[in-house]
Amino acid sequence: MVRLVPREAKFFEMFASMASNVTQGAKLLSQILMDMQNIEVRVRQLSDIEHAGDDITHTIITRLNQTFITPFDREDIHKLATSLDDVLDFIHAAGERIMMYKITTAPPHAAELAQIIVRQTEELAAAVAMLEKHDRVLDHAVEVNRLENEADQVARESIGRLFENETDPINLIKLKELYEVLETATDKAEDAANVLESVVLKSA
Amino acid sequence: MVRLVPREAKFFEMFASMASNVTQGAKLLSQILMDMQNIEVRVRQLSDIEHAGDDITHTIITRLNQTFITPFDREDIHKLATSLDDVLDFIHAAGERIMMYKITTAPPHAAELAQIIVRQTEELAAAVAMLEKHDRVLDHAVEVNRLENEADQVARESIGRLFENETDPINLIKLKELYEVLETATDKAEDAANVLESVVLKSA
Amino acid sequence: MVRLVPREAKFFEMFASMASNVTQGAKLLSQILMDMQNIEVRVRQLSDIEHAGDDITHTIITRLNQTFITPFDREDIHKLATSLDDVLDFIHAAGERIMMYKITTAPPHAAELAQIIVRQTEELAAAVAMLEKHDRVLDHAVEVNRLENEADQVARESIGRLFENETDPINLIKLKELYEVLETATDKAEDAANVLESVVLKSA
Repeated sequence: MVRLVPREAKFFEMFASMASNVTQGAKLLSQILMDMQNIEVRVRQLSDIEHAGDDITHTIITRLNQTFITPFDREDIHKLATSLDDVLDFIHAAGERIMMYKITTAPPHAAELAQIIVRQTEELAAAVAMLEKHDRVLDHAVEVNRLENEADQVARESIGRLFENETDPINLIKLKELYEVLETATDKAEDAANVLESVVLKSA
Repeated sequence: MVRLVPREAKFFEMFASMASNVTQGAKLLSQILMDMQNIEVRVRQLSDIEHAGDDITHTIITRLNQTFITPFDREDIHKLATSLDDVLDFIHAAGERIMMYKITTAPPHAAELAQIIVRQTEELAAAVAMLEKHDRVLDHAVEVNRLENEADQVARESIGRLFENETDPINLIKLKELYEVLETATDKAEDAANVLESVVLKSA
Repeated sequence: MVRLVPREAKFFEMFASMASNVTQGAKLLSQILMDMQNIEVRVRQLSDIEHAGDDITHTIITRLNQTFITPFDREDIHKLATSLDDVLDFIHAAGERIMMYKITTAPPHAAELAQIIVRQTEELAAAVAMLEKHDRVLDHAVEVNRLENEADQVARESIGRLFENETDPINLIKLKELYEVLETATDKAEDAANVLESVVLKSA
């Protein structure tokens, strides 16, 4: 595996790598859910992306623990790293559910939810890229929150319809959990956006 | 919607508004579960209360980020705001489950759990009202914790009985989740009480 | 109940008591899952251990709030106490599920997961014992994380097999949740290990 973050990287660069890696994971999940072919190989790729994310997170936390002066609040660096890592963990968890539950046909709105996650991670990546200059970070954060509300509604309606139409309880359990995992990924993206908002407001 | 918190409000006043709003939500949920009429209209009212709660929380966090001197620990202000917001989120989530799962008859002990949440939010409101003077805050916090233990036992017994009596697995999934969401609201109230306890002990 | 922590105890001693108590809980759960006899009595013992854990946690937090100079970061003392308490909460929750769901035969890999939790708590206890001198703490933390990955895989495979073989949806719900609760205990142990790692790295 290519080392994503060079040893001398700064916090802003590390977060840029992290956001780019999360976006890559979101896109792969979205592709999997739109076309359920070669699932095993592609979920394994998703696991690789998740492991790379773990490594960047660990590097950021280690660097944080050994750095006296940080470009923004220590606590916020910690929260931003863990919330971005959480987004990727739930993206990965969605892929794992597909494997573990042998889901061969994606439920109607799963791909739509994954697409919302892609848009959130792109907004987060844009916000992180501008974090040093504070430019338009709040706009991106607001959009991530709006997308979370959208996902919440899609998930609620999808699960509601599942309870109306799915008569096999075991299948219902599987698909309900897939929707919930996708929706939780969008919550974690909102957490990351809230940290970014705090960072900007504190320095205003 | 009426603006719940004026622009110049202080932290103690904002928390008083927040606790009062959460209590209102708890009472509405309790009424819904005692008499399952006009559910759609009343759950929409619950959503309005939840949105008002989001606004107050956002105002507190924004103010916190722009205020240098705070009346108590910054971290505790943040934790208190988010834990009170979490209580309301789970109160609202219970209402959403009723709609989403088309539950028309409340399960036997759901109203009892909602009533415990009402009592917890009243205790939290009383504690928040006394926070500036520190008077009897610890007593209220202890009572919130005691109520959480009570709720835990009610939920455990209710779910246990559900597994004994409910033979339709899909119905079981719905009602189990309703109980769990109600129980989680009482956990979040305990989190808020623990923050209040910390605030008082730190200044002792 | 014997008072586990004397009134004058120091933080390192309190954490040693706490880690030892968690280990005791993990061992009891592991024994229960290996031999499902006298479940009621033994789950009640598990509840006693959990209550003792709550008391130590409460003592640590109270002491923290009243102490100006702490042997390591205040925030880390708080996080370490709550994450160790969480491990025990989920160990206890596993016991509660056995009672609540009247599980009389442990599912195939539950005891294996409990045994991984035992090994994690022993590693945590060893790390806590060395925390004042920083000796080998990182090695223990790495091993706790490795065990969490192992548990994750065991849980995933066990749940996957459950969905293949269990045709009774209500039974599936019960056993799936038992596996998930056990797996969550290993996540919380990882959280505790991450705090220990941070404490050591900060002082390096």
